[in-house]
Amino acid sequence: MSKKEEIGITVKKADDFSEWYNEVVIKGELAEHSAVKGCMVIKPSGYAVWENIQKYFDSRIKSHGVKNTYFPLFIPESFFKKEAEHAEGFKPEVAWISNRDEDSERVAVRPTSETIMYDAFSRWIRSWRDMPLRINQWCNIVRWETKATKLFIRTREFLWQEGHCAYETAEEADKETLLFLEEYSKMAKEILALPVITGRKTDSEKFAGAVYTTSIEALMPDGKSIQAGTSHNLGQNFARAFGISFLGRDEKKELPHQISWGVSTRLIGGIVMTHSDDKGLVLPPKVAPIHAVIIPILFKDKKEIVIDAAKKIRESLSDFSVEIDAREEYTPGWKYNYWEMKGVPLRIEVGPRDLEKEEVIVVRRGTGDKVAIKISHIRKETAHLLDSIQKNLYDAAKKRLDERIIETKSMAEIEKTIGDRNIAKVNWCGDGRCEEKVKEKTGAKSMNMPFGLSAEGKCPLCHKDSKVVVYFAKSY
Amino acid sequence: MSKKEEIGITVKKADDFSEWYNEVVIKGELAEHSAVKGCMVIKPSGYAVWENIQKYFDSRIKSHGVKNTYFPLFIPESFFKKEAEHAEGFKPEVAWISNRDEDSERVAVRPTSETIMYDAFSRWIRSWRDMPLRINQWCNIVRWETKATKLFIRTREFLWQEGHCAYETAEEADKETLLFLEEYSKMAKEILALPVITGRKTDSEKFAGAVYTTSIEALMPDGKSIQAGTSHNLGQNFARAFGISFLGRDEKKELPHQISWGVSTRLIGGIVMTHSDDKGLVLPPKVAPIHAVIIPILFKDKKEIVIDAAKKIRESLSDFSVEIDAREEYTPGWKYNYWEMKGVPLRIEVGPRDLEKEEVIVVRRGTGDKVAIKISHIRKETAHLLDSIQKNLYDAAKKRLDERIIETKSMAEIEKTIGDRNIAKVNWCGDGRCEEKVKEKTGAKSMNMPFGLSAEGKCPLCHKDSKVVVYFAKSY
Repeated sequence: MSKKEEIGITVKKADDFSEWYNEVVIKGELAEHSAVKGCMVIKPSGYAVWENIQKYFDSRIKSHGVKNTYFPLFIPESFFKKEAEHAEGFKPEVAWISNRDEDSERVAVRPTSETIMYDAFSRWIRSWRDMPLRINQWCNIVRWETKATKLFIRTREFLWQEGHCAYETAEEADKETLLFLEEYSKMAKEILALPVITGRKTDSEKFAGAVYTTSIEALMPDGKSIQAGTSHNLGQNFARAFGISFLGRDEKKELPHQISWGVSTRLIGGIVMTHSDDKGLVLPPKVAPIHAVIIPILFKDKKEIVIDAAKKIRESLSDFSVEIDAREEYTPGWKYNYWEMKGVPLRIEVGPRDLEKEEVIVVRRGTGDKVAIKISHIRKETAHLLDSIQKNLYDAAKKRLDERIIETKSMAEIEKTIGDRNIAKVNWCGDGRCEEKVKEKTGAKSMNMPFGLSAEGKCPLCHKDSKVVVYFAKSY
Repeated sequence: MSKKEEIGITVKKADDFSEWYNEVVIKGELAEHSAVKGCMVIKPSGYAVWENIQKYFDSRIKSHGVKNTYFPLFIPESFFKKEAEHAEGFKPEVAWISNRDEDSERVAVRPTSETIMYDAFSRWIRSWRDMPLRINQWCNIVRWETKATKLFIRTREFLWQEGHCAYETAEEADKETLLFLEEYSKMAKEILALPVITGRKTDSEKFAGAVYTTSIEALMPDGKSIQAGTSHNLGQNFARAFGISFLGRDEKKELPHQISWGVSTRLIGGIVMTHSDDKGLVLPPKVAPIHAVIIPILFKDKKEIVIDAAKKIRESLSDFSVEIDAREEYTPGWKYNYWEMKGVPLRIEVGPRDLEKEEVIVVRRGTGDKVAIKISHIRKETAHLLDSIQKNLYDAAKKRLDERIIETKSMAEIEKTIGDRNIAKVNWCGDGRCEEKVKEKTGAKSMNMPFGLSAEGKCPLCHKDSKVVVYFAKSY
């Protein structure tokens, strides 16, 4: 009856990270490669994680007055050309529609929606009273990647939210660029258990068309960083390009100050890489589709008693998402492996002997710790354990991140740090040429310039005075 | 200060329905035409209606074990060709991507996702234990329409949900085709206040590739029907085309029986047409983004008292979505018109004189009925009034629908009925040639064959025995 041979991750995280990741995502049933090159199918478990992210974040942004909308998938060619930097930045990865009306121009599939939205903003914004305007959409995005596909991390189509706001003043735009970045950072910590570095991107890494870009960056165990979310201050660049203006409080015509911000299904890839292990997925309880799985231990003449008890336990856990796996064609051992691979935070084993003691055995995913819990305490203990798992995942990841940020004082140290798959912390002069030297020599890009750190001493590249701390790492 | 000239619907519903509809949608700020031909922008109020629909329906289908997923936007050309009828049906309206990899075939933008999903089903379904498989996705859809755009009703891109299920037996597939149709009908009645006709489509009107299609159909005031939702029984057609098979309980290889079902943002158009009036939008409370607007009547020296009272009333109405319109640049009269145009079900006027009596004036959208309500009763009375509005909207629409279904016994009667913008009820022989005759002569298509009606007498077209009742109407 043992079907153990079918189950389990065949590659170790430490041995081949890339292949391990692919297997964890696929065997954990989050997503799979589709028949369409570069595209993925997000399976029920993966989509449920996205729904949990959406639910949390949608309510957060609504509390800041953001309203959801839906703009067309298609963008007229002329719109791309209106903001020169933007056009240049997205040109290589735009997908075009071959259908064409006689009287219309060529249209692309949105790689981001600044242009199509700001065309509308030019009609919506007339007076200072129309602002702050805070708009968001949850939608699909297409970027015609030519690099190899990596589930959740790099696909031609992905899901995201994009927020687009317009303000009367530069101060408000500055403030809210950071407000939404802060929301991303909070989401990463509170529900994804993902420690991130918040900071400003260097000029060479900013969004095409922005005045500046801020980001949250996460370091993956293989030493590559993931840009997990960005919040851009667009200044008046797009307002100028799209003719958005308003009558100010002083009755004079002015241009609004704009920002845009987004996170995508890429976050799911970041969670999986950060928390999972050689047994498969590990999911933070706050985004896990299933919080606990109950495995009834089915001895011949005790089946009914055990299954009844399992059902009662599920009833008492109605605040959580709980499954019972009572399939008779699999052994308990096979089921343990299966649900571990699926990343369910808690396993509740219900056996006849424990039931006599009015107990069940609860096993934590991740640590594997086993504990006998009185059935009368199961509700309270489940809540407690889930909180504890959530917190431990974050703490462990935070510790690993902190250990991997290495001060570097020379190009040799930067090279060694990047070679060791760590983050090189550099006191930088701010000159793009020095940044470029690091990139050429190590293949690492600047992640961002973290907030709240002060630069000391000399830039290790040009030996001029350093102005700002910048982190370098290889990236996805 | 009166800005009355800017406000209000300029066309009457009875005079020019089409132009009236367009104005109601645009001035009610549900949606607008975009810069991209054939596409619309769904504005915050319109999207909030869609979110209310999603929230209701998503929880309904999850209660039936449906799981959400996300499949690629792109569909390989060869997939379309696998099911011949399906390919033929969608061919004229498919949008194609001009980007192409050397080693890959041409891809289209999904006009529906049967093909891309069932390719995955062929990997997911192995054994009878993998079923019932019930999958849904909320996504955007593209059909390259060449007919004139009508907001929500006919656009090249729209939002929808598409459910796709596979079963071991034909019986289950039959049963659940109706289960999801029943859910549509229930949603239409309970939250959209939209009376619908549930029935089976004739062969000539069924979904391309289906064995049969069932639908909910709604009649608009201009005499045109809207296909508001469909549930298709696909039999084994797609299973055969996509090589989906499973090992049955008897260890023999079998083909699953499949169904698919969908509703779209078109529903919003149906609501607007059905309920709105010459003052603008009327929205059923259960999908309205705002349930009540509080208008403080701002007399010079009583402003603070009135605004404080308005805030307290909003606090006591925290179960509802309530706005206060305290803008000083508009008169109360202008505001009344504005919020009526936006379709807010209740207006609460808070004036100093009524406050002295501890009362407010509550005005119903639609009927315009005014009633003084004690502030201490406002919560209970608001709930009561919203329920009453919801019910009345449905009852009124149902009465109008029933009155417009006309028994017809001859082609002349059918012609007259269609000419009068009503539904012609026909006892039909079931022969597609007779159906075609009606279409040619009147321009009306068959809506569906309503469930639960028995045919009597002779088919008015061929004078053979009638077998089934079919409804004819012009359609969107």
